Amino acid sequence: MAKTTPLSGFPEFLPSQRAAELAVIDSVRETFELHGFASIETRSVESLEDLMRKGETSHEVYVLRRLHADPDDAGREPHNVLGLHFDLTVPLARYVVEHQGHLAFPLRRYQIQRCWRGERPQEGRYREFTQADIDIIGRDELHLDADIEVTIVMAEALSRLPLPPITLRVNNRKLIEGFYRGLGVDDPVPVIRAIDKLDKIGADAVRADLLDAGLTADQAGLCLDLAQINRDDASFVDDVRKLGIAHPLLDQGLDELARAVEAAAPANTERFAVVADLKIARGLDYYTGTVFEGFTAAHGSLSICAGGRYDSLARDSRSTYPGVGISLGITRLLAPLISRGVLDADRSVPSCVLVAVPDDATRAVSRDVARRLRSRGIPTEVASSAAKYGRQIRHADRRGIPYVWFPPGADSSGGHQVKDIRSGDQVDADPDAWQPPTADLRPRIVTKERDT
Amino acid sequence: MAKTTPLSGFPEFLPSQRAAELAVIDSVRETFELHGFASIETRSVESLEDLMRKGETSHEVYVLRRLHADPDDAGREPHNVLGLHFDLTVPLARYVVEHQGHLAFPLRRYQIQRCWRGERPQEGRYREFTQADIDIIGRDELHLDADIEVTIVMAEALSRLPLPPITLRVNNRKLIEGFYRGLGVDDPVPVIRAIDKLDKIGADAVRADLLDAGLTADQAGLCLDLAQINRDDASFVDDVRKLGIAHPLLDQGLDELARAVEAAAPANTERFAVVADLKIARGLDYYTGTVFEGFTAAHGSLSICAGGRYDSLARDSRSTYPGVGISLGITRLLAPLISRGVLDADRSVPSCVLVAVPDDATRAVSRDVARRLRSRGIPTEVASSAAKYGRQIRHADRRGIPYVWFPPGADSSGGHQVKDIRSGDQVDADPDAWQPPTADLRPRIVTKERDT
Repeated sequence: MAKTTPLSGFPEFLPSQRAAELAVIDSVRETFELHGFASIETRSVESLEDLMRKGETSHEVYVLRRLHADPDDAGREPHNVLGLHFDLTVPLARYVVEHQGHLAFPLRRYQIQRCWRGERPQEGRYREFTQADIDIIGRDELHLDADIEVTIVMAEALSRLPLPPITLRVNNRKLIEGFYRGLGVDDPVPVIRAIDKLDKIGADAVRADLLDAGLTADQAGLCLDLAQINRDDASFVDDVRKLGIAHPLLDQGLDELARAVEAAAPANTERFAVVADLKIARGLDYYTGTVFEGFTAAHGSLSICAGGRYDSLARDSRSTYPGVGISLGITRLLAPLISRGVLDADRSVPSCVLVAVPDDATRAVSRDVARRLRSRGIPTEVASSAAKYGRQIRHADRRGIPYVWFPPGADSSGGHQVKDIRSGDQVDADPDAWQPPTADLRPRIVTKERDT
Repeated sequence: MAKTTPLSGFPEFLPSQRAAELAVIDSVRETFELHGFASIETRSVESLEDLMRKGETSHEVYVLRRLHADPDDAGREPHNVLGLHFDLTVPLARYVVEHQGHLAFPLRRYQIQRCWRGERPQEGRYREFTQADIDIIGRDELHLDADIEVTIVMAEALSRLPLPPITLRVNNRKLIEGFYRGLGVDDPVPVIRAIDKLDKIGADAVRADLLDAGLTADQAGLCLDLAQINRDDASFVDDVRKLGIAHPLLDQGLDELARAVEAAAPANTERFAVVADLKIARGLDYYTGTVFEGFTAAHGSLSICAGGRYDSLARDSRSTYPGVGISLGITRLLAPLISRGVLDADRSVPSCVLVAVPDDATRAVSRDVARRLRSRGIPTEVASSAAKYGRQIRHADRRGIPYVWFPPGADSSGGHQVKDIRSGDQVDADPDAWQPPTADLRPRIVTKERDT
């Protein structure tokens, strides 16, 4: 192993960077669990048949082959070929059908796992990445409150992250479909797909697409007016009403969206906003109600989370399983920040304390101090060698460990002392009582603004 | 998706089973972090060249192919072919060499990730499984204290698990090699490999193998005597001395093993023991000092963890990286217990409290109660429908949620009450002050003894 080079599209973090990622994952997980969402993990592989079921998938699948497989295996049928999952929705649908007899519905689950796509790597696109999904799945029915709940939960999870500002944009397919139908548009699908491209190609190009799709100039103008409505409270309802379109589906969509945005509003902070954004359409997916897309200014127009309501996430011979959920791209959110040096942790190890070793004969004393600190929940390591104290302090400093503990010397002189190596303060301390500030107990996320 | 069937070798858990697995992983992780081991994760793929480097690998590798790959890719060179990792040691070696310029040595890392092997599935052998590894890696040198430390840390991690009894068996290659050399055996490797099979084939068959390898009957007898020494403290040293063999390498091995076993002894409990077991050899791996193998009576002779000291885990043009570590097979330990119903959690959701909804008009009140409980760290969900209270209680009961909270009725009568649905006790409660017993806050691991 002379030298190795990074593999494009497979991000890998240094220990302090991983500590930052782990702090984000732990925070997200804590929010999900506080709301009672249950963890599940699915196998990493699905049959190629299940992976391709969505049809026009643009996701390049990694197919598995055993290195010493029978050559006969070459012509296997899609249901016998295994591929790595490219998201956590396809596996969830299969899991629900496979285990439905043992699940309690509505099933409220979170899932934090890696996914794989054999796509050409580029900024924000990875071949291996971690997703954090929440979904609520009903059997045969699922109340609108589920849409509101996943909005609240993801809003809370995002609002707690000490990251560059994030916006969760919410819309409702019923709202836009009802609006288009109220306008006299028979087939809303081409309109949805055109509007979906608004941020990418601009209003003029979308208008041209709408005219191509058979809309009149007036209709196209109103569709664009609708798409430009964007509010962080329910006042968007009045904006829509002013456009003068009426349709029962529009009313239902307005009501659903207003309720979701209002319920999630308490999560708004300086760094997080949930907004009703009526251009969000998620045109390529089969959503039937609420739709979500999350962005951070740090990543331009690349979304960092997405989701919505499916009236039929899965189906078996007896039941239909409607679902609503949001998928947060942990890697897509963090990896660019980490690689640009914007996001890191303040230390590369969990250790809050390094216990110095005066000499090899007293290592057992140092181990005992560490044991007593750990028994009170303080992550502690013992110096790996009985070097000069200056070197032991450097060992802590290089890893960002904030405290160095000095047991009584080999000559049994003095008592225990602990030094905050950031400030240089050194005080007498009792291994059974000393407590660091809570903020020092675990690695902390550090964000630096950088010119990029 | 009419019906799906489980995929052999790819275990998947129901939510309560996953809660048990997650509690075990969290517990192990907490021990690792309390000792200051840093989390790293590596990519799931390595080049086939790196995966095959160990040579005589018995692990069947899953190779990846992009579904729409160029046909030209078929004849790719091993360094361009990607396979899923079959353990976490090969990736660690590659990670250390790739990132060495940014790592602080000794590097103390833990890694909890999935691995894949395309082996024929059978009891205790999985195609996808989770490993939890700790390793300490030095640059050019690594003190014996590292061996002692990983022994202590894994012993503590195992001793904290509320599982069937586990034994961590420790030996030292220097001890057995020194003994064989002191006996006059020139090449200890065939002896190590023969002794390694003692549990599988029995003493008589091993004796025959030793004679075949050119040992005299006396030598073979002494090798077997050594292999049968097994003590949970340093008294094994006297047992070995009584066999009357002397060699400097034996002395070194005895000292190293005695120190490791004594240092780890405080972790011994009713359900966990660390023992010096002189038949543990790990003959197929290139260990150079301490070796580990862990067992649980629940799984017969199948080991649930293994590891040891490598004097050269990795190497680049400038340095050698010695390492010592232990790998705990999370899936191998848990999946058989879970599938036999021995191991589970007491609930299928994190929720400690279900807040009932008197009627749809007061759902906001229920949501507010939930918010207040969560703000104090109590996992809480709100009933998904304003059904009769009996049905809402059944919703909690089916998921194992211990408490149901009743807000004041829709008629504003009464105050808040909370019911422990296990005992039926119902009491007045304040959403800003009520606290459940700590043991009820999270799903708890439940083990049932079963006739198997």
